[in-house]
Amino acid sequence: MPVRPTPAMGFIENRKPMKAVVLLSGGMDSATVLAYAKNEGYDVLAVSFNYGQRHEIELAAGSALAYQAGVKRLVIPLKLGAIWKSALIGPENGKLSIPNYQDTHIHEGDIPATYVPDRNIIFLSIACAIAESIDAEVVFGGMNALDYSGYPDCRPEFIQAFNKMLRRGSKAGIEGKLRVEAPLIDMTKKEIVELALKLGVPLELTWSCYRGGQKACGKCDSCALRLKGFREAGAVDPLEYEVRE
Amino acid sequence: MPVRPTPAMGFIENRKPMKAVVLLSGGMDSATVLAYAKNEGYDVLAVSFNYGQRHEIELAAGSALAYQAGVKRLVIPLKLGAIWKSALIGPENGKLSIPNYQDTHIHEGDIPATYVPDRNIIFLSIACAIAESIDAEVVFGGMNALDYSGYPDCRPEFIQAFNKMLRRGSKAGIEGKLRVEAPLIDMTKKEIVELALKLGVPLELTWSCYRGGQKACGKCDSCALRLKGFREAGAVDPLEYEVRE
Repeated sequence: MPVRPTPAMGFIENRKPMKAVVLLSGGMDSATVLAYAKNEGYDVLAVSFNYGQRHEIELAAGSALAYQAGVKRLVIPLKLGAIWKSALIGPENGKLSIPNYQDTHIHEGDIPATYVPDRNIIFLSIACAIAESIDAEVVFGGMNALDYSGYPDCRPEFIQAFNKMLRRGSKAGIEGKLRVEAPLIDMTKKEIVELALKLGVPLELTWSCYRGGQKACGKCDSCALRLKGFREAGAVDPLEYEVRE
Repeated sequence: MPVRPTPAMGFIENRKPMKAVVLLSGGMDSATVLAYAKNEGYDVLAVSFNYGQRHEIELAAGSALAYQAGVKRLVIPLKLGAIWKSALIGPENGKLSIPNYQDTHIHEGDIPATYVPDRNIIFLSIACAIAESIDAEVVFGGMNALDYSGYPDCRPEFIQAFNKMLRRGSKAGIEGKLRVEAPLIDMTKKEIVELALKLGVPLELTWSCYRGGQKACGKCDSCALRLKGFREAGAVDPLEYEVRE
């Protein structure tokens, strides 16, 4: 049976390792994807966005994670300011506040106020431009569609449609040299925590809370789903929380 | 026969006109699309990008065009610097120079050095985020796939795939409230010049040349295709050129 070549095998054959771009927000999911890509043998460039997020503190987490992983990282400024309508963007959008998890998911399928229009479309597009420019073959993102907030740009059908669009609209895509992968897309938060622990992700360096205070709030979507994952995995989240529910 | 409602009819019915976002580079094509969108009755917000283009002078053209048309305009800074590999981005990419038209299209289907990886994917994504945030129903772009440089992100199959991706990955897309339109996509440069003249586009304010000098060079892809359009339309381009070939 022929063996499928993997990037790691490149080392044996004395070839350069394949390159990948990893979207690194600084949260648990993207930190896990960073570790996953490195573990697959990719030469990784991490990309973070400074887009006016209230939890700008995640950028410091991204910085620490990239340093710890020994990978280079670009921080792209993308300031649409108050015009980008989302509770996650502040302080310009001061009137929209971050809802608690229990207030958000009353009706199944509702998209919460923390939805940032077209965020992952933009982030993936820019990451693809960088990947295409440095001859990277894959852009990894931490999107997942189970135990998530219901954002449309985190679903498998979106990733699939994005890849198809990339195969029509970019040189590297047309030539079959670039694709987007979301390795966590079908995983529960429990499984993501388990994978993170297995890969030795420094979870104490990550930041997930949307509120971006001194401690994680424990109540927003992002905290609630993360804590659920740790609870179900029988593990303890090393972060400090205002409340652990 | 039922009459299809148009945005212009909104005025008659005393409704607010529908909103549109127009990608306005400052070139002839986007200036024509701006006039088209206004003529269709849309309340237009123009969006331009300062992305390190050598021909940054096009931003001044965009400014003049928006002022003349009486529409608001956002200029989004998007600096990926030297990492965005293209002859069109400088001076960081100093080693890549703008080729002349006759050197570019020797082999049919070649994508020239002025291709900017994923540029229209990024521009459309950000324009869609703005459109979704202000409840605009359409993003207009000036892409066209006849008499063009062969960029993959200017072809109808790309626009189609982008719209499909938008219907998967964004709230407005899923709800059928936002789409991308490229009204010039199947038009020759001759037809674009004719439409521009018909709509009264102030062509003397536009800027197309990739080289961004004091006068248009007349030799790059963008100049050559524009001059061809005027020639075939039997009209005279009001811009000053170094050479008119």
